[in-house]
Amino acid sequence: MLKKVLIANRGEIAVRIIRACREMGISTVAVYSEADKEALHTQLADEAVCIGPAMPKDSYLNITNILSACVLTGADAIHPGFGFLSENPKFAKMCRQCNIKFIGPDYETIEMMGNKAEARKIMKISGVPVVPGYEGEIRDENHALEIAKEIGYPIMIKASAGGGGKGIRIAHNDEEFLLGFKTAKAEAKACFGDDSLYIEKFVQKPKHIEFQILADEHGNVIHLCERECSMQRKNQKVLEEAPSNVLTPELREKMGEIAKKAALAVDYKNAGTIEFLFDKDNNFYFMEMNTRIQVEHPITEMITGIDLVKQQLKIAAGEKLEFTQDDIKIKGHAIECRVNAEDPDHDFRPCPGKIEELCIPGGMGVRIDSAIFCGYKIPHCYDSMMAKVITFGNDRNEAIVKMNRALAEFAVGGVKTNIDFELSILESKEFLEGDYDTSFLAEKMVKKNA
Amino acid sequence: MLKKVLIANRGEIAVRIIRACREMGISTVAVYSEADKEALHTQLADEAVCIGPAMPKDSYLNITNILSACVLTGADAIHPGFGFLSENPKFAKMCRQCNIKFIGPDYETIEMMGNKAEARKIMKISGVPVVPGYEGEIRDENHALEIAKEIGYPIMIKASAGGGGKGIRIAHNDEEFLLGFKTAKAEAKACFGDDSLYIEKFVQKPKHIEFQILADEHGNVIHLCERECSMQRKNQKVLEEAPSNVLTPELREKMGEIAKKAALAVDYKNAGTIEFLFDKDNNFYFMEMNTRIQVEHPITEMITGIDLVKQQLKIAAGEKLEFTQDDIKIKGHAIECRVNAEDPDHDFRPCPGKIEELCIPGGMGVRIDSAIFCGYKIPHCYDSMMAKVITFGNDRNEAIVKMNRALAEFAVGGVKTNIDFELSILESKEFLEGDYDTSFLAEKMVKKNA
Repeated sequence: MLKKVLIANRGEIAVRIIRACREMGISTVAVYSEADKEALHTQLADEAVCIGPAMPKDSYLNITNILSACVLTGADAIHPGFGFLSENPKFAKMCRQCNIKFIGPDYETIEMMGNKAEARKIMKISGVPVVPGYEGEIRDENHALEIAKEIGYPIMIKASAGGGGKGIRIAHNDEEFLLGFKTAKAEAKACFGDDSLYIEKFVQKPKHIEFQILADEHGNVIHLCERECSMQRKNQKVLEEAPSNVLTPELREKMGEIAKKAALAVDYKNAGTIEFLFDKDNNFYFMEMNTRIQVEHPITEMITGIDLVKQQLKIAAGEKLEFTQDDIKIKGHAIECRVNAEDPDHDFRPCPGKIEELCIPGGMGVRIDSAIFCGYKIPHCYDSMMAKVITFGNDRNEAIVKMNRALAEFAVGGVKTNIDFELSILESKEFLEGDYDTSFLAEKMVKKNA
Repeated sequence: MLKKVLIANRGEIAVRIIRACREMGISTVAVYSEADKEALHTQLADEAVCIGPAMPKDSYLNITNILSACVLTGADAIHPGFGFLSENPKFAKMCRQCNIKFIGPDYETIEMMGNKAEARKIMKISGVPVVPGYEGEIRDENHALEIAKEIGYPIMIKASAGGGGKGIRIAHNDEEFLLGFKTAKAEAKACFGDDSLYIEKFVQKPKHIEFQILADEHGNVIHLCERECSMQRKNQKVLEEAPSNVLTPELREKMGEIAKKAALAVDYKNAGTIEFLFDKDNNFYFMEMNTRIQVEHPITEMITGIDLVKQQLKIAAGEKLEFTQDDIKIKGHAIECRVNAEDPDHDFRPCPGKIEELCIPGGMGVRIDSAIFCGYKIPHCYDSMMAKVITFGNDRNEAIVKMNRALAEFAVGGVKTNIDFELSILESKEFLEGDYDTSFLAEKMVKKNA
């Protein structure tokens, strides 16, 4: 087993990983920026090393400092969490060169899946359905327009190196396409340092349904069913639930098998997620693969009873999967709401600040994953997620009722939050009927709210 | 279904009941003393009525004021929680007279089970094993001594109206017996206003194992297996777990059937608990019946998946039990630790005060039932329990590991707590091996700690 793990992250996911390590008897090393001296992850870990100033590029993205902290403390592995360096193949490669176990897939896999066009190509060859599109190199604007016309509008333009909704444009005609191509290129360059784009058919009003997979280093792959993540605002998930109420057991099995096929196609190791677009006619298309733990992983844990972060640690230690596909049984229903320090009345702008009052919900069927406490000052240089509220019920209705109850109890003073916005989603007819897709928030909720 | 429930209690159990009501769509009325204006239960309920000054006799034990609040707000039922008026037959009777549903058994049952000698007699007649003892009226000291000698030492003297460990004495010889009889009588008078005592054989180093039962108003009774509650200090439970690791499935079934027999013998309705003494030779004896929800009810909820407070509300509304005995399946293992504001270094004296800092644990398998928040001032006139930390694991070891992790994360500033004491219990060889009885804390832990 691993002896000491360095967590190259902050916030609730760092705390989440520390918890898993502690329960497994693994020592933990936190790294923290100068803005995170008082942060919970810094306090909870067995050791903590400052890795630089507040700005991510100087600390949580600072590969040299993180690897130095690892060598200094004698950690034998690094858990990257999500965001930051978690999908950076260079970082994963350097870990290997330093003889430090990177808790995730091989850097070659990260690299392949990080390039969206490349990922598409591999999946297509491997028999995983993909959205009609163009995976060759795009020479220039005119070549791009030619491709767009051939596929047919509406068209989606995406940054090859993209993630988090950055560098994406939708075009319904030539004019929109040319403008979108230009701005996406600039945004991709600015965000990812790589301006290559790829083009595909835009699937209208799809659901976002993703499959959790686990793969060990001995060739075994299982899936842990799906998560319904269509409740998105600007491509950022706001509320997730599992299982999806549109999948029949047959469809679940079919999609799960394809998710496993996708993982096998890239020699995947560790926990990963295959994201699918799911249209009104039950067609589904590979969207992308996330080669790390997801924010919304707890809902899968609640319905399967399996601790995914512990599984990551075990797999990284070379252990064989302790489950076969037949062992995986779904029980009940789970929902996650992301509680953010942001102002829904002003375009959800982040509202960092000091938490002056705090009452966190509890009781049966309520799980809280967070790194906040009363008196904690949310720094302005990181994302605005304060807490994940996860509820579990014997059925969807019970999980909803519990989420309503839990969010109503959640009291925060000092910073604005999106709690009322989450509650309004829970009340909407579309959510209650399970009849929502990725367009729902933008079309029905955000306008109403603005 | 019930429409509006008044909760005649405070603290975490009041919050617990409000949560169940809210999830069932039932309106809630909190009652509060002048010391509890800012308390969480006062804030969370739909309505809140002040029922008097801080001292329990003036507020939470003030039957007239509570019934007035109920009439005033139009509540159709009262949930008494535990402690306070929960086992007061006069209160239950007055509820009935006022046409208010008392959420619990009939007052006649409470009365019968409240008198320990009476309860013993009924159980004996009904074929429920009881500790050898004397259930007749004790004329005087000399008569008592005669009985003691006949039963044989060691002898336990108990207040007939007792509860919470008050009015109990152990005697190993005549001298101790005479002294104990006198002091128990005085204590019983002071605590319960009733100085009648009863006498029985003292079972040495027993385990305290209790069975949860649910009985509807249509004659259906089921049990929800046992809780191991031997970890007691001065007859107050400190840590509880379920299931017990000394019960075989056969013994569980046998004791469960007897628990159901005990409930049927007194025409029991609603949720109740049959407490057994369990000796080294697997003999078990009826100890007493608690005619209310117990502090430690969440561990049963965790291993059965059944919300006991919701069941209480459904039963009170006249619904039939939705489960048969065959539906009740145990899964995993749960532990509860009671986190109290008290000072283990000074005989566990209560340490009320203001909570200046607070970090409550979370994550997978951790449930918190509490009514505290940062800035909350724990009043000095009520009990010192701040929070119940409940952990769930697939097996006992996992539940222990999670409890260790959760308690280590639990940070409280401003008041002393017993968290380190709970952690030292978790580390003890006896606890880890499951080899402990009701004498363990006094003999092994408290001395060491003092």
